[in-house]
Formats: sequence, C-alpha cells, structure tokens
Amino acid sequence: MKEHYKEDAWSIIEEGFHAEMQKSSESIFSLGNGRMGQRANFEEDYSGESLLGNYVGGVYYPDKTRVGWWKNGYPEYFAKVLNAANWIGIRVTANGELLDLATAKVSEFRRELNMKEGYLHRTFTAELPNGIKLKVDARRFLSMQVFEAGLIRYSVTPLNYSGEIEFGCYIDGDIKNEDSNYDEKFWAEVTRETGNDTSALIIRTKKLDFHVCTAQKIVLTKNGENQTFTSIATEKEKYVENLISVSATEGDEIVVYKYAANVSSLNHDKSELMNQAMQVVSRCSVDGFDEMLEDQKNAWAERWKMNDIVIEGDVAAQQAIRFNIFQLNQTYTGDDARLNIGPKGFTGEKYGGSTYWDTEAYCLPFYMLTAGQDVAKNLLLYRYRQLNKAIENGEKLGFKAGAALYPMVTMNGEECHNEWEITFEEIHRNGAIAYAIYNYIKHTGDSGYLMEGGLEVLLAISRFWSQRFNWSDHKKQYVMLGVTGPNEYENNVNNNWYTNYIARWTMQYTMECMEYCREDSGFWNEFIQKTSFVNDQELTQWRKIVDNVYEPRLEGSNIYLQQDGYLDKEDRLAEDLDPQERPINQHWSWDRILRSVFIKQADVLQGMYFFEDDFSEEVIRDNFNYYEPRTVHESSLSPCVHSVIASKLGMEEKAYEMYLRTARLDLDDYNHEADEGLHITSMAGTWIAVIEGFGGKRVHDGILSFDPVIPPQWDSYRFNLVYRNVIIRVGVSANGVSVKTESDGELEILIYGKSHRLTANNPINVER
Amino acid sequence: MKEHYKEDAWSIIEEGFHAEMQKSSESIFSLGNGRMGQRANFEEDYSGESLLGNYVGGVYYPDKTRVGWWKNGYPEYFAKVLNAANWIGIRVTANGELLDLATAKVSEFRRELNMKEGYLHRTFTAELPNGIKLKVDARRFLSMQVFEAGLIRYSVTPLNYSGEIEFGCYIDGDIKNEDSNYDEKFWAEVTRETGNDTSALIIRTKKLDFHVCTAQKIVLTKNGENQTFTSIATEKEKYVENLISVSATEGDEIVVYKYAANVSSLNHDKSELMNQAMQVVSRCSVDGFDEMLEDQKNAWAERWKMNDIVIEGDVAAQQAIRFNIFQLNQTYTGDDARLNIGPKGFTGEKYGGSTYWDTEAYCLPFYMLTAGQDVAKNLLLYRYRQLNKAIENGEKLGFKAGAALYPMVTMNGEECHNEWEITFEEIHRNGAIAYAIYNYIKHTGDSGYLMEGGLEVLLAISRFWSQRFNWSDHKKQYVMLGVTGPNEYENNVNNNWYTNYIARWTMQYTMECMEYCREDSGFWNEFIQKTSFVNDQELTQWRKIVDNVYEPRLEGSNIYLQQDGYLDKEDRLAEDLDPQERPINQHWSWDRILRSVFIKQADVLQGMYFFEDDFSEEVIRDNFNYYEPRTVHESSLSPCVHSVIASKLGMEEKAYEMYLRTARLDLDDYNHEADEGLHITSMAGTWIAVIEGFGGKRVHDGILSFDPVIPPQWDSYRFNLVYRNVIIRVGVSANGVSVKTESDGELEILIYGKSHRLTANNPINVER
Repeated sequence: MKEHYKEDAWSIIEEGFHAEMQKSSESIFSLGNGRMGQRANFEEDYSGESLLGNYVGGVYYPDKTRVGWWKNGYPEYFAKVLNAANWIGIRVTANGELLDLATAKVSEFRRELNMKEGYLHRTFTAELPNGIKLKVDARRFLSMQVFEAGLIRYSVTPLNYSGEIEFGCYIDGDIKNEDSNYDEKFWAEVTRETGNDTSALIIRTKKLDFHVCTAQKIVLTKNGENQTFTSIATEKEKYVENLISVSATEGDEIVVYKYAANVSSLNHDKSELMNQAMQVVSRCSVDGFDEMLEDQKNAWAERWKMNDIVIEGDVAAQQAIRFNIFQLNQTYTGDDARLNIGPKGFTGEKYGGSTYWDTEAYCLPFYMLTAGQDVAKNLLLYRYRQLNKAIENGEKLGFKAGAALYPMVTMNGEECHNEWEITFEEIHRNGAIAYAIYNYIKHTGDSGYLMEGGLEVLLAISRFWSQRFNWSDHKKQYVMLGVTGPNEYENNVNNNWYTNYIARWTMQYTMECMEYCREDSGFWNEFIQKTSFVNDQELTQWRKIVDNVYEPRLEGSNIYLQQDGYLDKEDRLAEDLDPQERPINQHWSWDRILRSVFIKQADVLQGMYFFEDDFSEEVIRDNFNYYEPRTVHESSLSPCVHSVIASKLGMEEKAYEMYLRTARLDLDDYNHEADEGLHITSMAGTWIAVIEGFGGKRVHDGILSFDPVIPPQWDSYRFNLVYRNVIIRVGVSANGVSVKTESDGELEILIYGKSHRLTANNPINVER
Repeated sequence: MKEHYKEDAWSIIEEGFHAEMQKSSESIFSLGNGRMGQRANFEEDYSGESLLGNYVGGVYYPDKTRVGWWKNGYPEYFAKVLNAANWIGIRVTANGELLDLATAKVSEFRRELNMKEGYLHRTFTAELPNGIKLKVDARRFLSMQVFEAGLIRYSVTPLNYSGEIEFGCYIDGDIKNEDSNYDEKFWAEVTRETGNDTSALIIRTKKLDFHVCTAQKIVLTKNGENQTFTSIATEKEKYVENLISVSATEGDEIVVYKYAANVSSLNHDKSELMNQAMQVVSRCSVDGFDEMLEDQKNAWAERWKMNDIVIEGDVAAQQAIRFNIFQLNQTYTGDDARLNIGPKGFTGEKYGGSTYWDTEAYCLPFYMLTAGQDVAKNLLLYRYRQLNKAIENGEKLGFKAGAALYPMVTMNGEECHNEWEITFEEIHRNGAIAYAIYNYIKHTGDSGYLMEGGLEVLLAISRFWSQRFNWSDHKKQYVMLGVTGPNEYENNVNNNWYTNYIARWTMQYTMECMEYCREDSGFWNEFIQKTSFVNDQELTQWRKIVDNVYEPRLEGSNIYLQQDGYLDKEDRLAEDLDPQERPINQHWSWDRILRSVFIKQADVLQGMYFFEDDFSEEVIRDNFNYYEPRTVHESSLSPCVHSVIASKLGMEEKAYEMYLRTARLDLDDYNHEADEGLHITSMAGTWIAVIEGFGGKRVHDGILSFDPVIPPQWDSYRFNLVYRNVIIRVGVSANGVSVKTESDGELEILIYGKSHRLTANNPINVER
C-alpha cells in the first residue's frame, strides 16, 4: 500500500514530481464529464513512461479476437475502449529547447484534482537542459455543461530568460491503443483543416466508421492582455498544429488558452461534425475559460448537493469517498441510454467493453439513489434494447426458444469476451440483470416497468436458466454444471451456490411478475404473442426446477458451499499466506489459485447480500465467519460487500477495514495496477458500503429504513438519498441519527426499526 | 467420410485432379525419411489452395506466445514446427505461358505414393491457356540412406508444340509458417550462391540461430541423352534459381533431375554447411536418380521385412495399415535421440512442438517392437535429458524439492503450450512417461536402465504426484483437484480416475524400483546424493498417499467414474446424437461439450488398457460397456484403445469397426482435417490395435503371449515383432495361428495360454 497523495477533504494533491508514479497519477487525476474523458497526461511533451488516454463515450472498436486456442462459440471481435485523438497537446520550446519533465530539472511540482469544482490544476518550475527556467501553471477541465468541450489554461512564465517561447498547439489523431490485439492503428483520417487560431481534424474508426472531429481554438494573453498572433499551421496525416511564437521578457506570464471540442457521429450527422466542433470552440472562446470554470463549479456544486457524503474526523475516509463519488459522476451522468459504466470508465483501456454485471450489481443503486429514477431506468433500458442480441448469444451456445444469455462484456449487446470459463460459464451475470429489475421496482415502486420491457427480459433470462439446469439422476435434483461464480478463482465448477440460488430466484420472481402483469390482459396477450410464451408447458417445467434445485451445504452447519468440490480443498486461511506471495494472482500459477480455497471476491456472501431477507442473521454470520477469512479480496468488487455484511453483523472493525480497502483501493493502489486505470465500477460499491453498510439503509415493502452504525474512527457522517422523489439527508454521530428533507410530501421511514413520518424541514432526531 | 483414394495393397493412388482435395492430398502423399519431410506440394507453380511444407527434423522456432488473457505460469514461447526453404520448385513455362494446374486443363492426372518402395509418382497432361499440351511425369523421394538428400525426376513432353520450354529450378527461403502467432517470417538469410548447374542458400532462424543450407544440382536430359546447358542464375534475398531454357520438338521428353540437400547446424558446423550440402548433391548426381531409387527400394524392403503387416482378404484394411506403418517410418527412425515423433510428423505445422504424451503412450510400443530396444531406449533418454527442465517447469507452478512436471508439448524440454486447462492440468502425461519406463523394462528386461536415468525420472515424477495430491478432510482420503484427463472434453475436474490411478501407480512402481536399485549401494548412494532423496520422510508420505487415494466409483457397480461430477451430467448416448451435429467439436460451443457426458477419447478405458492385469475381465467389460457408448472418438488416439479392449472382450465387430476408424482416419478423413497434416502418433495406435488387439500380444513376467482373434472380414493376417532380439513372425487365420522365427536362440511363448518353445525355423502351428 502506498500513501502517495496528500490527505485533503476535497482534493487529491500530489507534491513533488514522481516519474515512477506518473502512469498511476495519470489515472488518479483523470477528468471526465460522462461523455468523454482524459487521463492526466501532460499538455507539454513528456518522454517518460506514460499511458496516453483520451476517450469519447460510445465510440469503440471491434478488435479482432486474439486467442491461443480457439473454442467454438468465441466471438469474432472484442470491443475496445478507443484511445482517440490527443487534443491537449501544447509543445513548449524556449530557445529551441523542449520542455519535457523527463529531461528537465523539476521543482515545486504540485498537482491537484479539485473535486469540489471539477478541474485539474498543475504547477511546477522546470529548468530545461539549456538552463532556462520556466514556471508553469496549467489548469483544465471537461465541461459538465457543454459536454463536448475541454478547456485548458496553460500559463508559462520564464524566470531567467527573455526571448522567444514557442507553443505548438496540436491535435494528434495518429495514436494507438496500447491494447491492440494485432498492433494495428484503429483510426484513419477523414479530413483536416487549419486556420490561424483554429485547427480541426476528423478521423474515423477503420471498423464501424465512427467519425470524431476534434477541434481547437487558441487564445493568447501576455500579462493578462490579449495578444494577436500569426501562427504557423502544420498539417500531416491525422495531425494538425498551430505553432505560435511569443516574445517574452523574464517574468512575463504567457497564457495559452486552448478551447477544444470532441464531437462524434454518435450525436451528429457526419457531414455536420466540423461545423459542430467549430461552434463548440467558438462558444467556449467567447465565454472564456474563467466564466466557463465558474459554470463548472456551479454544475459540480449541484451534483455534490445530492451526492456528497461528509465524514467528520477522518480525512482519509472523507477524501476517499469523495474521490469515488467524483469519478462515478465523471464516468456516467445517466442522460444517454446508449452509454454505460465501463470498469475503468474514461481512465484506461484495460478490459475493453463498457458493460459488465458490475452495472447492475453495483452501479445501479448509486445512480438510482443519487441521480434518480430516470437514470436508473436508462440503465435497465440499455439491457432491454440489447435483448435480441442476448437471445442470439444464447442461440450461439445451443439454447433455444428465446433463452437469453447476456454477454459478460459488451458495447452494443454482442458478447466480446473470449475466455471460455468466463464467456460461456460466468453466467450468474444473467441473474444480476434480473435482480436489477427487482431492485429498481423495489426502490421506485415502478412496477409498470415490467410492461415496458422488464418482463420480456425476465422471461428470456428465466428461459435460459430453465435450460441451463439439468436433472441429475444421481442427486435426484436439478444441478447446474460447468459454471464460474463471482469468485473467478474457481472455474468450471459444478453447483456454484450463488449461481444456483440467483437462477432459481429469477425463475420465481419472473413467475410472480407474470401474475402481476397477467391482470392487464391487453398487455398479457401481446406479450404471449411476442415472446411465443407457452404458459403451461414452460411454467410447469420451471416449477419442477424451482422446487428441486440442489444447494451444496456443509452438513451439520449453516454453511452453504461455494460449489460441489469446495470441501475437498486443502483448508487454509488468508492470514496464513506469506505476505510475499500476495496478491496471489501475481505470484501463483493459475492452477494453484484454482485449487486453493482462496476466494477472489464475495461469492456465497454476494448471495447473502442480495437476498439477505431469506436468511437468519445467524446463517449470515456463520457464512461470513467461514468465508471472510478465506477471501483475499483481489477483486475490487469484494470488500464493499464484506463491509456491508460486517456492518449488519455489528462487526464494526471489520466493516471499517473493508471500507477503507474499497474506498482507497486506487488512491493507495492496493493491487498495484492503478497505472492501468481506476476501478470505476467498484467505486459504487464504496458508496454502498457507506449507505447500506454503515447507514444500514434498506427498503422493505416500499418502506425505507436506516439502522446506522458509525465506525469508531469517525466523529460523524452525513449522506443524501433521493427516494421516490424525496431528497433525504441523513446524519449519523455517536449519539444518534438525524434524518431530514426539504422536499414536499410525507414519507414513512424506519429508524432502528421504529416508524417515523418525514416531512419537509422537520428533522427527525433519534438517539442511539 | 470420403473414399477418395483407390484401394490398393501397396500404394495410395489418386486418379483425376481434384483441386478441392489438394491440401488433404498434400498431407496424404507426404514424404519423409525421419530427418526431414515434405508435403506433396507440386514442383511446378500452383496458384490454387495449398499448404507449403518442408520440414527439417529438430529445427524449430520459439514463437512468442499468443493468448487472449495471460495466466500466471504460461510459457513465453511456443516451439513451432518450422516451414523451411522450398527446395522442390521447378517453374515450367512453354512459349511464355506458365504451367499451373489451377489454370491449365488437366487430364490423365494420377499420383501414387508407392509405400513399398518409398517414392511419390505423379503424371498428368496439362493444356496451358495458350493451348500448348504438356505431358508430365514427376517422381521424387527423400533418401532413406543419404538422409540429407531429396531427389526429383521431372519429365516434360510437349504434345503439340515445338519451341522453348523453360525450367526455373529454384530454392525459395522466403517462406512463412501458416502458423505464426504474429504473422512474422521466421527465417533470415545467411548467404547464397549460384553456379551454372548448382545453387545453394543458407538461411537461419531469427531466434535460436539454427542454420539450414539448401542446395540443388540440376542435370538435364532430352530423350534420354544428357544435355549441357547454360543457365541464367537469379539471386534475390533468400532465393536462388537456375533458369534453363530447352529447345524441344513435339514429342521430345525433357527430364530435369533436381538433386537437393537440406543440411542443418544440428548436425554440422555452421561453417561447413555449404560444403556439406554441395557434397550431398554431388554424390547424388554422380550416383544418379535411378541408382539411388534402387537403394531406396532396398532400404524400404529392409524396413518392411520387420514392419509389414499383411492382411489377406481386405484391401482397405491392408492399405490402411501399411499407410500407417509407412508414415511412422517416414517420421522417426530412432537413431537420433534428439528427435521425437510430432503429432503431425513432417506433414503439417499444426500443434507445434514435437513431443506429446503420445510418444510414450502410443509410439514407444511400435518402435520398441519393430525397430528394437535401442530405438526405444532413445525415446526414454530423450525425456531423461530433459529432466532438469521438467523440474524447472514444476518449480514454476509452485512445486518443490525436485518434483518434475514434464511439459504437455515440447521441443527442447521447455513447456510451450498455453491453455491453462491443458498446460497446467493435463498432468496425467507425467504418468505416461513413468509408464513408458515400466513398459520398456517389461519388454526388454533391461532393468539396468533404471540406473541409467530411469529411477531419477521416476523419483521426480513421484515427487510431483506426492505434492499434487492433497488430503481432503471431507473425504478423509487423498484427492487430486483441478485436472484434465485424457478426455479433453472435460476440463478442470476433480479426481479424474485415470490420473489418480496412474499417479498412485507411479509412486508404487517407483518404490519397487527403489527396492531393486538399493541393492547396488554404489549407485544408491550416488543417487541419494544427486537427488537429495530423503528416504524415510518422502517414502512415509508416499505410502500414506498410496494407501489412501480416492477413487470415484458408481456405487453398486464395477464402474469407475471418470471424475467426481460425471454422474450429475445429463445421460445420453453417442448414437442418439444428431449426425448433423457431429463431430460435436465442430458444432457445439465449448461449454456445452464440457457439460455433456460425451467423451473425446479413452479415459477410464485408457487406464484399463494400461493396467489391465489389475482388473477382472468382468470389470473391464462393464466399464467398456458403460463408456464406449458415450465416446465420440473425436481424438485420433481413441479408437485404437477401444479396439484393443474390444478384441480382448471378444467383441470382434466393435474391434473391427474401431480398427477401421483408426486405420483409415486420414485416408478417409473422418474428422475433416487431413488438410492440416496427418495424425502420425495415432498411427502407432493402429499398429497396437492389430498386434495387441487382434493379435492379443501380451508380456507377463518376461513371457510373450498371443491370443489372436481374426475379424470375420479378413482371410488371414501376418505381423512381425522383435522381442529380446528374436524376430518373431506371427500368422493368423480363421483356422489357427502360426508363429515362427529365423533368429537363433530359444524363446518360451504362450499361445492361447499354452506354453511353446520357439526356435529358429521351427514354426509352431496352433489350431484355434
């Protein structure tokens, strides 16, 4: 664990230049506005280690699958998050010497990700190899209001030099994905243009033909005065540049404003892209950097009003939770149902695809309870729109009659993963998609969604499960063979308890929902026709299965077994592992990991988390005490679930340990991989750990309840929720709980099991 | 199943030109001499579909591993069989028009692989697009005596044309492996030379720096008269050519003799390669094609004397068994312990590597009993030489203290496979390597081999097993988790019965061998020191394991279960499969195959075959009757084992069905993949099916025995064996068995359980 960044309630701050940390810091200091994102690459040239990353939401590339050994059923393509044109570039030279932090002597380096106001700020002094000292102050942000705009204010002050300073403001589309299976470049040029203070470049993806226009407009000031200039325009294939030379005297502050736009054919006619981009940069340059930064602050202030979690008495925890919330908001804003929440968001290329089961299992609660019902519904509709492809995917694997297997990883609904034990076998993802519908209705009361697509999705998933179970003549029960559970440290196992459980649950829930929908005979008749649903035959088979699903158990105990063979493993505890061998996924061969009892992430416990009402506290405790010591938490999705359960069980120390681990996973780089990008989707898990864990938030029969605990390290904490259009603000201290709202209407809530009526501006205070 | 080639006792014959079959026929008509091999590519240019293949034994390329998702423990390289310089090329043009069977009108096309005499003969008439008709007669062979030489006699007769005919005799080293992970070329040029009638090219592999010199010497005749000529020499990078123009009159027969050599740095100093190659081609041209073809016939006659199996009354079976024996002899001659038997021999690139467990499980018996003890011992020594690398491989996967895991696929002892469920888990291969030592000693009586390396290998393998088993607190027995058995249609299973069985057997056998070797205290002390063997400690642990290995069984029956979860599968029989869906590996997604009961190849039955004496006939029959109907035989290694067991059980129809399937696998292309190369190693299985299956050959306590049966389709069959230096000739007809020898010495043998003394020239005749 590294503690590299300064603790601060509202900012991530790095002091001193650390080249060895640059790739990690590029991830940490990433910016995004839900439509595009940018790693914290430097504007000026940098010859040190770096992962360039500029991502335009919804623009991806179907890279030809690369495997060692082809297996039937693999998809032809893997949809890659696409590194798009580099729009931040400002190459700086003074007296012919390049500013490059890898070759300069760097002092007073500081950067700050201002999460409160949504911008990145970097200052340093660099002594170039020729002795010239430059003081630099660089700020940038991706506008939360003009979502296609990125703005840079780049200030240079020569400290010991008078003469020419050159600024090469460029857009470079000749870039590569680090993650390219066959080392190809994914972009080709469409057209380019340069003017005196503007340039633009349109490039297109070689497959799927996405077009993206990236444009810039340059404004120059010296000591605060606007400067006119004559630039030298350079054009090469996939590259445009405005080179501006400025005469500076020692102490002059030269500021280059770079107003940039990334506009894509996702949102505009291809023929309109150039126009559109130019309009964006013009508008930005008219409003100006400072005014737009004010807008940015206001936009973020609005968000924080709904999103913020305040933790008093623990700056590390405070900083961490805000970092998580900030990144989630940078990744997805929920107003475009074509987008989703990639596991690395806009902070790296790794994993490709944009949609995993993380969305339903972890992210949905966050967006549903901070951004509201419409955003949550957009996440459900995303899957509904892809239902036909999920059915096709099922067919490809031999399933019939409208059985859907949603892909493990996708961009457009097609599977793009290619690891048989995951792609074909980690099918519990289907269950999470069903669970999300249930969870959405539970929170919003919007049962009507069933008739807007929900029931179709449930039917198709249940059909899959009904075919995927098989009767075991030996066990005289239905079994599910050859699956990989949430614990990916076991592959191709039989009867993963979690998968069996959520499969059975889906079928039961689907039948319940059918009962509800059947009452609307107009809908029902149309539904039957559309889905060719054969009521009696299918339901009879489902009921037979539901009543006879095998659940592996440890006899004479409350323990549900992760899978059939779990007890045959050599029993060890994570605490007995040699610390030198952790994380085991970086030290052990894969077969050794698979044979071990060690669990990557909550598996049986994921089921206890989703379906906690089905189990007594004793059962949950016994399972937690059995599995937690065997869990190595080498997935970012693990600690949050453990934290929630630990809170419920009153194990506050464990809950806090797990919370810190999830909250500061990237900031402290627990798994030595922050350089590849941040763990965006697990950040939602961190939020869950506070709200459902410490806050003890639950919903039963439409009633919201809280059973808060507080980690001893904290003085107090506060969080906000929007529940059925009521904005609820909860404060917890050692002494008690306060719940209030400014919203109209009346809401029944439970606090520590006791009912209260919540009305506007009448705080409820409950002592512990 | 295709029946494309003519049935003939001694030849494979194709009549008519079938472009759609060309790639398959290139495999079928392959030539080899144990040191190099050549697919049946055409000498003249061919623009149709073709897989060029020229392979030089022992020369390989470590291609960088390509996987979709890296797993810890994967090797960095995959050793590839290397497509080397094309030495057969003779580009023919008449009046400027190229002879190319893809563009010409072809008639009277016939090719014959003369297995008796070891050469390839092709004749056809081609009408070129310009109307010129050429009659061509092409013969070639790879010398079994001058093992670096290949000889071509290429005859052209213009039927309706008088004028110039050009022969571009070339060597092309600028070739690619079809199987290249990153589409690289593997060869670079060292040097090249051209003269008037000779050319030579030395190329080297870009990794490992193997050098291969390919040389040619051209001799020309017209109507049988030697012709002097002046050639135009062309040189390009990795390419040399002698272009010869001949004036011909309609009806003239022009013959180009191409004497070629492939000499490699495996056998010569790099500086000597050019000399060496020139000597080879000179010698060949001096002896001449006809004389060397006579030598070739004699060399093959010698081999057939020991190898041949004669089947009367069933030409298809006769042809097939000779094809198998011929290809085995073309692949490996056993006099170079650095070489081994690749699964495709010299007939294709697929699979890479050269050594699989096929060598020990299938090929050893063939070579041991036809080529003799020294050849068999070379195969054992090959593994002994690679022991250190097998121990390193074990260490890489977390095993300790001299535990060896032999690689799944190798060239030089290093693992080069990269599929976790195979590479790390198909560990039964280790058992086959131990079994081969046992089998060798059983047949030869050469227990001394234990002290020449055998015991070291056994110890290292037993150490591996002792660490790979783990104690199950649940089962109160030792279990082996996460393996893939011989049936690769199940992956990562627990307690594969075969693996558990052979593992326990290895440990037991090793302990027995130790008892034997311990008596030689000089050897024993040295052995203990060299291997750091801790007698008491290790053996105590081994004994604990050996006495407590878990064997999965079907309760209340004699059935051993393939693995723990086998009974939970949906039970179906192969005969119930839709024929449209077979082979299932080309129609079903991988997970579906894994979940099914269908078995790719003998698994439990492989164990019954290896260890038949441990089981009653009833047990074997019950297991055969259980598993055979669930076996789809989609591995070439499957039918032979089934055939042997069926013969033993008196199920002659089944035995014959399985025999034909293994024997004509490639000729009839059962699995639609002959185009990729032949199934060389399984050809040894075919031989086993005759000798051990129909012939009922066994060895017990040093005594050779026969219990022959005869398929009703056959009139009689005869085979030969060399056993403890006695050459034994066995004839079987419906009436009885005759066994004879010309060798000196006396041998006790059993026929149908009765003892006989076999002496020179005193045939034993036994009625059935």
